[in-house]
Amino acid sequence: MKQDDQIPYKIYLRENEMPAAWYNVRADMKQKPAPLLNPATHQPMGKEDLSAVFCEELVDQELNETDAYIEIPQEIRNFYKMYRPSPLVRAYCLEEKLQTPAKIYYKFEGNNTSGSHKLNSAIAQAYYAKKQGLKGVTTETGAGQWGTALSMACSYFDLDCKVYMVKVSYEQKPFRREVMRTYGASVTPSPSETTAVGQRILKEHPGTSGSLGCAISEAVEAATSNEGYRYVLGSVLNQVLLHQSIIGLETKRAMDKYNITPDIIIGCAGGGSNLGGLIAPFMGEKLRGEKDYRFIAVEPASCPSFTRGKFAYDFCDTGNICPLAKMYTLGSSFIPSANHAGGLRFHGMSSTLSQLYHDGLMEARAVEQTAVFEAAEQFARIEGILPAPESSHAIRAAIDEAMRCKETGEEKTILFGLTGTGYFDMVAYEKFHNGEMSDYLPTDAELQAGFDALPKFPGCEG
Amino acid sequence: MKQDDQIPYKIYLRENEMPAAWYNVRADMKQKPAPLLNPATHQPMGKEDLSAVFCEELVDQELNETDAYIEIPQEIRNFYKMYRPSPLVRAYCLEEKLQTPAKIYYKFEGNNTSGSHKLNSAIAQAYYAKKQGLKGVTTETGAGQWGTALSMACSYFDLDCKVYMVKVSYEQKPFRREVMRTYGASVTPSPSETTAVGQRILKEHPGTSGSLGCAISEAVEAATSNEGYRYVLGSVLNQVLLHQSIIGLETKRAMDKYNITPDIIIGCAGGGSNLGGLIAPFMGEKLRGEKDYRFIAVEPASCPSFTRGKFAYDFCDTGNICPLAKMYTLGSSFIPSANHAGGLRFHGMSSTLSQLYHDGLMEARAVEQTAVFEAAEQFARIEGILPAPESSHAIRAAIDEAMRCKETGEEKTILFGLTGTGYFDMVAYEKFHNGEMSDYLPTDAELQAGFDALPKFPGCEG
Repeated sequence: MKQDDQIPYKIYLRENEMPAAWYNVRADMKQKPAPLLNPATHQPMGKEDLSAVFCEELVDQELNETDAYIEIPQEIRNFYKMYRPSPLVRAYCLEEKLQTPAKIYYKFEGNNTSGSHKLNSAIAQAYYAKKQGLKGVTTETGAGQWGTALSMACSYFDLDCKVYMVKVSYEQKPFRREVMRTYGASVTPSPSETTAVGQRILKEHPGTSGSLGCAISEAVEAATSNEGYRYVLGSVLNQVLLHQSIIGLETKRAMDKYNITPDIIIGCAGGGSNLGGLIAPFMGEKLRGEKDYRFIAVEPASCPSFTRGKFAYDFCDTGNICPLAKMYTLGSSFIPSANHAGGLRFHGMSSTLSQLYHDGLMEARAVEQTAVFEAAEQFARIEGILPAPESSHAIRAAIDEAMRCKETGEEKTILFGLTGTGYFDMVAYEKFHNGEMSDYLPTDAELQAGFDALPKFPGCEG
Repeated sequence: MKQDDQIPYKIYLRENEMPAAWYNVRADMKQKPAPLLNPATHQPMGKEDLSAVFCEELVDQELNETDAYIEIPQEIRNFYKMYRPSPLVRAYCLEEKLQTPAKIYYKFEGNNTSGSHKLNSAIAQAYYAKKQGLKGVTTETGAGQWGTALSMACSYFDLDCKVYMVKVSYEQKPFRREVMRTYGASVTPSPSETTAVGQRILKEHPGTSGSLGCAISEAVEAATSNEGYRYVLGSVLNQVLLHQSIIGLETKRAMDKYNITPDIIIGCAGGGSNLGGLIAPFMGEKLRGEKDYRFIAVEPASCPSFTRGKFAYDFCDTGNICPLAKMYTLGSSFIPSANHAGGLRFHGMSSTLSQLYHDGLMEARAVEQTAVFEAAEQFARIEGILPAPESSHAIRAAIDEAMRCKETGEEKTILFGLTGTGYFDMVAYEKFHNGEMSDYLPTDAELQAGFDALPKFPGCEG
């Protein structure tokens, strides 16, 4: 293994180099993301509207389009110390194995018990809930990473935590449930009989294995119908991207320290929290015309919101009780086919990222899951880390780009986000090992059914 | 959270501060550990004897009682860079929660895919096997951490890896098996029909859930009956303690850098690899009369080799085909009761640690498993990390010592080894959450049965 003498294998920032403020990319966007709309009136939601569902300071962050930097409260920075800085790793072994002239770096967010970057926003949201004097929070979880992260954060601040877990994940990942219980959370498989919207969905679709959109509906109802509770969401929202900017800020500071400039920045995209956080400060430079970068969002071919979705207002949830967001969407009724493993199963995409993509500031690419697991296993064997299926979408694209460099001889610097570990995804790995994993591309007719169900009102595709 | 300005929350050594040689504590021991004996002749085994089972350079390390430092080959140091240095963490949050004047540090070895410190020795043993031109290696695994670690190491050096996994773990931990398969290993539940010794044990004890000692017998037979294979062991042996000294060397360098001196050093003890590695350089100072430390080995009350075992020559395996080691042992037929969760289930203990304990240089303590899981859950909620059951034995003792400081007002500095994470132990956590976990102390009669079966020959209790 050849190592550049000047660049450590892993770069850890020192405590005094850690970012003290989050970066709010919206402040530098000329074309701002469209506002959330009230589902009944189709009017932009203000602070009062949103405060029924979300914590007040988080609503401020959600609506803030002007401040480029927002200070990270000391209590959150204290918690960050438990598992941050995360390492920026030079993938020397992978480069050698691929025989590519490309230089590959990854920011690894999996070294914490939640197993992913989700903890970055969970602790912020729990902090503001505690500060507001709430009893607890409700949320949904798919693959279980967000629910675990929120359980940890709530345990730290002694808040109650109610998690609605997509039924198929609840059944496939009983151990995730036990991790959440270790941190004192209550976990309910969704759809459930515990909410009106859950009862309705069960009646309409008996035997459904659930979806993120459906679990969101239940969690929102549980928050708004219980005194002293608010709803928190692990992705999609502006506030979440803001908190996740810690990933990009650390990465950029580490790279600047060693005079490294990435040419291509790659992230997997479900709701967009990791991708949005990773690219934030780099996108800021691009928006301000200071530097140029290629950004690539990688999504599952079985849930292709960027690459095959519509840019329109849509509900964030299946039950249609949430605010409307302008985003790339497959329709709130869209559910990925049953053979899709892991997360990245949300029907929509962050409004901020959707606007950036719409404006041609980033690219998107869909990859099929057997190719993703091939990349995952290759990466595990070469770089040691067993990646989450979600993260492996970014690995797939990074390897593909590195192999392109091999063809062209270009010495590009590739940065990708390795969002988490796959320790709770061994059922999917087992299918892959046994040759039982398959790919699925939704048909045009299936997608059209989702588009037909999009809400229609003046300006909905505005 | 109050933080000492001078001491980071987590201390990571820089690349140029990393140890370049392992420390061999035997060089500083006046009373050397007793040699391995040939089970047939009861004579000390030399290089030739041992080379039938182990790789040659590892045999040299096994027998080396004179060199205090042995250089770490560059290839191993390269691999170490993937997951080392491991952080030395100041448990500020735990201290605050306990309201103790004690200062608590832990060396966390769980941030790698094997989930534990076992990778430190696995990569060394795989390296020497590769260097010797072998096709592959065989081994046993209990909780699965060692097997996973060895699979990763063999994958890195492109070696075949045959793992015999204790049947009860194989069944309770199917996901561990899939991790090993991800790294290309073959995994067989033990006892199995694939070896003569496995067949014999199955005949004598039909329906047995297996034991480490039994899996060792099978792995040794598989190594010696297949051309181009050798056997590797994840604990107990001198060579393993040597490799694991990287834990203690990193810890000591990090502490020295910030002028921290531990008063008490605590580690969990199964075969002794983590404890031996953690304490090595500190014990060296004690042996050389330079400094004094209290060392505490913590073992399960259900498998109490130090606290209730005999210091005598015994077989390392159930099938009695392995060399005899002088150690604290419960007898090679001893199997912990079925309600015992997790690892630390070996009937014996490292000869080196046994000698040190026998000579009064360290203490030992047995703890019951419900108390261990209470400490585990408390630690998870306060420090964020979900610990392995094994590691939680050390947490239990560290908390107990910190609470003693609270009573006495002493500001002691406590260091403990946090060997790994519990992501694959959620069945045990679930039992704990559901109130279904119990404790078991072996009766004197049960222990006596094990002692009665100890090999008897002149000098066996030396």
